[in-house]
Amino acid sequence: MSEMFAKVALLGVGLIGSSMAHAMRRAGLAGHIAGYSHRIETVDLARTVGFADSLYTDAAACVKDADLVVLCTPVGTFKALAEEIAPVLKPGAILSDAGSVKGAVIRDVGPFVPEGVHFIPAHPIAGTEQSGPTAGFAELFDGRWCILTPPEETDPQAVAKLKAFWEALGSNVEVMDAHRHDLVLAITSHVPHLIAYNIVGTADDLENVTEGEVIKYSAGGFRDFTRIAASDPTMWRDIFLNNKEAVLEVLGRFGEDLSALQRAIRWGDGETLYNLFARTRAIRRSIIDAGQDTASPNFGRGEKK
Amino acid sequence: MSEMFAKVALLGVGLIGSSMAHAMRRAGLAGHIAGYSHRIETVDLARTVGFADSLYTDAAACVKDADLVVLCTPVGTFKALAEEIAPVLKPGAILSDAGSVKGAVIRDVGPFVPEGVHFIPAHPIAGTEQSGPTAGFAELFDGRWCILTPPEETDPQAVAKLKAFWEALGSNVEVMDAHRHDLVLAITSHVPHLIAYNIVGTADDLENVTEGEVIKYSAGGFRDFTRIAASDPTMWRDIFLNNKEAVLEVLGRFGEDLSALQRAIRWGDGETLYNLFARTRAIRRSIIDAGQDTASPNFGRGEKK
Repeated sequence: MSEMFAKVALLGVGLIGSSMAHAMRRAGLAGHIAGYSHRIETVDLARTVGFADSLYTDAAACVKDADLVVLCTPVGTFKALAEEIAPVLKPGAILSDAGSVKGAVIRDVGPFVPEGVHFIPAHPIAGTEQSGPTAGFAELFDGRWCILTPPEETDPQAVAKLKAFWEALGSNVEVMDAHRHDLVLAITSHVPHLIAYNIVGTADDLENVTEGEVIKYSAGGFRDFTRIAASDPTMWRDIFLNNKEAVLEVLGRFGEDLSALQRAIRWGDGETLYNLFARTRAIRRSIIDAGQDTASPNFGRGEKK
Repeated sequence: MSEMFAKVALLGVGLIGSSMAHAMRRAGLAGHIAGYSHRIETVDLARTVGFADSLYTDAAACVKDADLVVLCTPVGTFKALAEEIAPVLKPGAILSDAGSVKGAVIRDVGPFVPEGVHFIPAHPIAGTEQSGPTAGFAELFDGRWCILTPPEETDPQAVAKLKAFWEALGSNVEVMDAHRHDLVLAITSHVPHLIAYNIVGTADDLENVTEGEVIKYSAGGFRDFTRIAASDPTMWRDIFLNNKEAVLEVLGRFGEDLSALQRAIRWGDGETLYNLFARTRAIRRSIIDAGQDTASPNFGRGEKK
């Protein structure tokens, strides 16, 4: 793969930003990779790992002359960052992001995008429960989906270029409407995370009674929830605050369905329970068939290879 | 390890029964391993794998002369099985089980246990989402906990023998009250499974609208729930029907906590969200410290080694 951008600026060098840098290097996609964090400790850590050609605590300095700028910080920071970098964005550059919500990103960033800059929101659906500049690895995006949600008036050539870029990082790419993205992600990612956080919290409150037993016997299912509930707290707070409508819609449905199960347990209605459990098992098989996980435990979770 | 029982009868040769057989062979614990399933197809499949010395579709024939009998079928079958085998249980034998609920097992099996037979309910906390005679492997119990819940009047020597047996299978063993077991497992295993089944069902209903997208983008968190929600439907139906009280208690708390989170999202209360997410991350670290999972993805899920 040959160089696609002379300079790429990554605003944010945590799990996603650092993994993008590693994957860009693997494929030789960028002439120069610039990284930014507002924390000097993070910049120092990123320097130690060595995936960036230059590092900054000043976002405007980082994006200067960049042909591709990607916001990789928690989405709650996007509005202020966009305002800060807007005056120095290079004409013809692509401005993108890696946020897990898309409607709010268009709302927050869109108004600051200068004429001549191509604004194309993106969401690579990949991750682990690790975070920070040391957590990244080149294979994170391999075989995973990346969704682009360009506003209607976006230049198709710029969209095609960003699509090719993500494919070169290892992803499959899909283009869809931001509103649809936010609903699909609410069910496949946001609400599952909220539920995992919630059950771990419920267990922790109960734990005061049961003295360490929750930890000790976690292999019965609970530990899989703790894995999900160990994801970055700031990132996830921002996701829920910025995909409120879709998350509340899906949560409402989840609550109704759970009440029905609760009722089935109370009244000893084994048939309702069995029918659901048999149906969900079939969905698992569909995911394995779609290549998004495998039947053997522990593969396909974005692990280092 | 030397032979502990001249004959062990496993009533049920699915994931747990077949794994017990493999682990007994690894340690040389049994002179003869007899297996039972009410389905001839399962017996034939078990014969192909070859972990049992004899196989039966008649439970009474299987337990004849056995020094240790373990019920490894779904707990909903225990009452009928206990009634069937009671007349032929060998005096001095230990009768145990591997069910995920313990109060209901004492209620269902206890009345049939003949004088002179030691009834010691047990629950190995280990499993995968696979099931059937081909799913078992010798390492399933290594480093996992097994909880014994002997009724108060049980012979301490028999309890010590069963404890040594499970330790020889690779487990850590804990003795506790059946009621406490059922509450601890409701939070660490039963309610997490119910929630996973429920969210996968909710997503499946929504799926009719979103055309395969739920499957496609499952790497964002959802697929971890489908893994849990792929567990054996009959086994789990029986667990919920037989641990009703504790499951409903924990579900009630879970629902209250989820309502509070839902409210925080609706009103944009980021602090409440952040505080919970930071707290649950710490619990994850405790589980890793306790050796019940590791920080690297995909280890410790009971995989074949």
